[in-house]
Amino acid sequence: MNTHHLRTTVDGRWAAVRDDVREQMGELKLLPDPDLSTEEHRALVADAMVKLAATGRPHEAFDPAYGGAGDVGGVVAAFQMLAYGDLSLLVKAGVQWGLFGGALQALGTERHHERYLRDTMSGALQGCFAMTETGHGSDVQHLRTTATYDEATREFVITTPDLGARKDYIGGAARDARMAAVFAQLVTKGETQGVHAFLVPIRDDDGAAMPGVTISDCGRKAGLNGVDNGRLVFHEVRVPREALLNRYGDVDPDGTYSSPIDNETRRFFTMLGTLVRGRISVAGGAGSATQKALTIAIRYGNVRRQFADPVSGEEVVVLDYLAHQRKLLPALATTYALHFAQNDLLARMDRLQGFGPGTVRSESEQRELETRAAGIKAVGTWHATATIQACREACGGAGYLAENLLPQLKADTDVFTTFEGDNTVLLQLVAKTLLSEYGRSVGALDTAGKARFAVGFVGEVIAERSGARLLLRRGNLRDRGYQRWLLAEREEHLLAGLARRLRPALRKGADQFGIFNAAQDHLLETARAHVDRIVVDAFTEAVERTTDRDVRALLERVLELHTLATIEADRAWFVEHGYLTAARTKAVTSTINRLCGELRPHARTLVDGFGIPEPWVDCPLLDGERNAADPNTNPAPGAGEPAEIAAVG
Amino acid sequence: MNTHHLRTTVDGRWAAVRDDVREQMGELKLLPDPDLSTEEHRALVADAMVKLAATGRPHEAFDPAYGGAGDVGGVVAAFQMLAYGDLSLLVKAGVQWGLFGGALQALGTERHHERYLRDTMSGALQGCFAMTETGHGSDVQHLRTTATYDEATREFVITTPDLGARKDYIGGAARDARMAAVFAQLVTKGETQGVHAFLVPIRDDDGAAMPGVTISDCGRKAGLNGVDNGRLVFHEVRVPREALLNRYGDVDPDGTYSSPIDNETRRFFTMLGTLVRGRISVAGGAGSATQKALTIAIRYGNVRRQFADPVSGEEVVVLDYLAHQRKLLPALATTYALHFAQNDLLARMDRLQGFGPGTVRSESEQRELETRAAGIKAVGTWHATATIQACREACGGAGYLAENLLPQLKADTDVFTTFEGDNTVLLQLVAKTLLSEYGRSVGALDTAGKARFAVGFVGEVIAERSGARLLLRRGNLRDRGYQRWLLAEREEHLLAGLARRLRPALRKGADQFGIFNAAQDHLLETARAHVDRIVVDAFTEAVERTTDRDVRALLERVLELHTLATIEADRAWFVEHGYLTAARTKAVTSTINRLCGELRPHARTLVDGFGIPEPWVDCPLLDGERNAADPNTNPAPGAGEPAEIAAVG
Repeated sequence: MNTHHLRTTVDGRWAAVRDDVREQMGELKLLPDPDLSTEEHRALVADAMVKLAATGRPHEAFDPAYGGAGDVGGVVAAFQMLAYGDLSLLVKAGVQWGLFGGALQALGTERHHERYLRDTMSGALQGCFAMTETGHGSDVQHLRTTATYDEATREFVITTPDLGARKDYIGGAARDARMAAVFAQLVTKGETQGVHAFLVPIRDDDGAAMPGVTISDCGRKAGLNGVDNGRLVFHEVRVPREALLNRYGDVDPDGTYSSPIDNETRRFFTMLGTLVRGRISVAGGAGSATQKALTIAIRYGNVRRQFADPVSGEEVVVLDYLAHQRKLLPALATTYALHFAQNDLLARMDRLQGFGPGTVRSESEQRELETRAAGIKAVGTWHATATIQACREACGGAGYLAENLLPQLKADTDVFTTFEGDNTVLLQLVAKTLLSEYGRSVGALDTAGKARFAVGFVGEVIAERSGARLLLRRGNLRDRGYQRWLLAEREEHLLAGLARRLRPALRKGADQFGIFNAAQDHLLETARAHVDRIVVDAFTEAVERTTDRDVRALLERVLELHTLATIEADRAWFVEHGYLTAARTKAVTSTINRLCGELRPHARTLVDGFGIPEPWVDCPLLDGERNAADPNTNPAPGAGEPAEIAAVG
Repeated sequence: MNTHHLRTTVDGRWAAVRDDVREQMGELKLLPDPDLSTEEHRALVADAMVKLAATGRPHEAFDPAYGGAGDVGGVVAAFQMLAYGDLSLLVKAGVQWGLFGGALQALGTERHHERYLRDTMSGALQGCFAMTETGHGSDVQHLRTTATYDEATREFVITTPDLGARKDYIGGAARDARMAAVFAQLVTKGETQGVHAFLVPIRDDDGAAMPGVTISDCGRKAGLNGVDNGRLVFHEVRVPREALLNRYGDVDPDGTYSSPIDNETRRFFTMLGTLVRGRISVAGGAGSATQKALTIAIRYGNVRRQFADPVSGEEVVVLDYLAHQRKLLPALATTYALHFAQNDLLARMDRLQGFGPGTVRSESEQRELETRAAGIKAVGTWHATATIQACREACGGAGYLAENLLPQLKADTDVFTTFEGDNTVLLQLVAKTLLSEYGRSVGALDTAGKARFAVGFVGEVIAERSGARLLLRRGNLRDRGYQRWLLAEREEHLLAGLARRLRPALRKGADQFGIFNAAQDHLLETARAHVDRIVVDAFTEAVERTTDRDVRALLERVLELHTLATIEADRAWFVEHGYLTAARTKAVTSTINRLCGELRPHARTLVDGFGIPEPWVDCPLLDGERNAADPNTNPAPGAGEPAEIAAVG
């Protein structure tokens, strides 16, 4: 097994970029020092930002017309690798170039690009992204900050009407940012036109708050303390008319509003959609952090011994225990799956948001990208939280020490499940998109067809289920096509049932909230099933593209472990709905156990496949690797009484 | 609903003690300041230890002959409430009085009690508990530190033979402890007699390390940074013969070893068993921390609004969403269940380890206590980790800020799943005890009976299952007896199957490790099923003792939610083994959803029932409670387009 070939496959399309980053950053030990005070950590990250800007890497995502390289996918591929080091730098860079720079690029027009893009790329202009408010985090459409146009002076007046409308948790606001992209309700001629973004200077050149801007500090956080999150309150702050990022909506000097998109909600979601890169980047960062945690825990488990084999008397390497394999190996397989799903996401994003000749502007593909990004971000960040936790526990007390890096990974990534979109809310978005597509396909039937559909629905489901039962008896659990069929069936079955449950909400006078709320768990399950299926598809496609025979054979087993673990996690559903018999779901479990045993000898190879430079994972916990051959470190204690088994029977 | 009556029921037998603690500590805002450096935090906790000693509370667990009160249960009931404040103080106090003091009391004899107990109670003598080694955490029986008896000088020579035998993660070692209870292999006359504890001075009066003792610092940790964890290495450190804590094993001046327990393994487990209080205390601390997290998250969810009801236009309180209820209310019910199981554990411990006339010395009850403590510690600390995580996420970005207390709770309690016994290892202990009891009951049959047992086993299981099927059709899912029956059946079924799978390991020449390892997941499931059942039993008994009608009616629903959530979590198993039909498990899920709705109006009352003093939960996140009636904080945004539902169909 050639680890280099594995890594090349894992790296995928942007392998060269990733190798560059390994070279550039691998020598720097960009790890957070856990003893730093908040201020020291912020200063360190601010310095690192200057170094990062000097590499020129952040420029590359921007429009070539202004000195960028238009390599949107490559930059995110590089960006997510920052999570191998200090995640505060990842988030700080994400705010500056991804969110602030991204808003400037995507929501602004030439006048903004011309004036600010170069300084944003170089870091000479530090920006922040002032969207979230204390009272509105998930429901961004109902933000309450206002930007009211004053025809007399041709200015917008930015106002925080109440404490709930205070901008909150804004990265960069507490210390470094000079300018904010402020999201506010645009009001002109007495009418509200919905949320738009405005460039608002918040600090002068000396770093003092601008008149009318009150800045406060969010203080210490669970993690990411190198990022200066703060709060902004605006007291009638005046900015020129041109401060409006006017790509999707503009105001004439006389105050007349115009937009290429008439519907306010559609306009809002179109604007938000252009910012999808932030979500993709968070998913990528979560993936890298998970890879690092697994690299540490698996390498430790690969040499750590505990409890003697009662027959040989030799102490057993902990990764040889089934329970330990169960903790780490399915999580490793899923981390691989999500990595390939992320690679696929980068390619789709690059195709849609790039600047090159291959770039495609397709509204339907853009919507699909947003749905995928939302789903993969939610599933991937929850996976990160659970897996890093499992890795910490798998390393026992040593995993709790800061010197062994896992605590910082855990603390820093924790917020990923709720920022850039709360995961629960994101999965609802996914389900709603699926529902509206489903609705469209039903809507395409004529009226008679619709009636048949409504009446015959239950019958159809039963017919489908009988088919399923037949198939289930024939399908081979270890057949990839059959596994994929199970996941696709679950998705379709859940979606059809959900649409049926929600249909009454369309009736006039219906208790829409009640109907919707009663099905909320069903809705979330549907979204989850969808994401599970697309992740398996992305992994499958990557495996099928793999030409190296050994790498492919290994990845096929990883894919199988991931897919079966996904099925096992929801095995109750498959039995409840007649897709698997009880005997079959037990076979799923025993197959997973067998696969864990098969992959166990390759565990080290698989984490090496992520290619994390050694300085980024080096920690005292792995000292044991050097001593693994030294019997004095953890020698066999002599057979003794087989305490493990003695109690049995 | 009288909250006071609820709290009295929750407090149980030690209600008066708990009220005392609320009074004593409720006024002190003993919350960790997240901006403290490690050294500042350690100093603060050291000060708090002095104050805590001054309350006289820690004394009370000790032998009345030396100034204690012998109120073992009451002290632990009080102790676990420290987790409402700074968990570093809880752990530091646990090391001093629970582990060091506990070892002194339980493993020492009069000469040790006479000399050290008073100073230990007062804190004049600060001790640490040096058991864990770098190379041996879970497998304590194979520790490698040696204590070799030197007849010539009548001393023990304490030695760390290699780096793996270094004492590691020892609370108190890095800064404050003057003496260590060192666990080491006792060697005399060239023979090893197994692990014993020795009192070894590690620092002189000025705080300098004693000759031959090398002390180092574990440094920053994920949490609990007010506790000074350190490492100890011994270079031929000599202590007098009397330093041996000699209750279960002694060495004559001439070096002859004697013990009231011949079997070395049995002796070892008897000694460890006396230290069960540490495990019970950790379970209790985890419970309090969980209660605090839920108090914050539920009170926030009770006033926080997000997204408008599409019909009324009013923003919905987030705890009205089914998904939010699902995140928090079953966890709240389980927290109640574990609290009552913990109360039961305290009463059992008090009965066995107290000093009063009602104290019972029963080996079988002691073993049962140890098994329960191991199981409840494992299940309770995992529940804490998962629930505090869910609470953090349920509070969004605000939950990530240190000022809102959840990050510290999360970071501090994280290690609970692996210290005082790694949870996975503890569940294995539980399962092994169950197996050996099961083996004894099978062993009680005569030879012919055994043969019949072996042959008829499969038949018996089938007969039992047919009975189950009959019962399942009759049982009412909302009937408490039926729910309990399901949990008991699962436990018995798993245990019988496990015994059958492991029986081949008893054959001569069998691959014991291989057989055991292949069934490790089954083993862990069995232990989990046992703990689930005893927790439900303890909660049920508490409910049945409740006389206040309203309180009882409320707790009955909480019990039902907990029990059904436990069944739901393993519903695949119940279907796979024929105990529930697919239709029934779906009914379990819909019943839980209904119960969440029924309990939702009582959520605030239920968290108030924990009786956490207000200063311990007061944080900016709960400012919204004061403003909940103020429409300016988070007003209805006007109906607008029903975005939540618009996408449907």
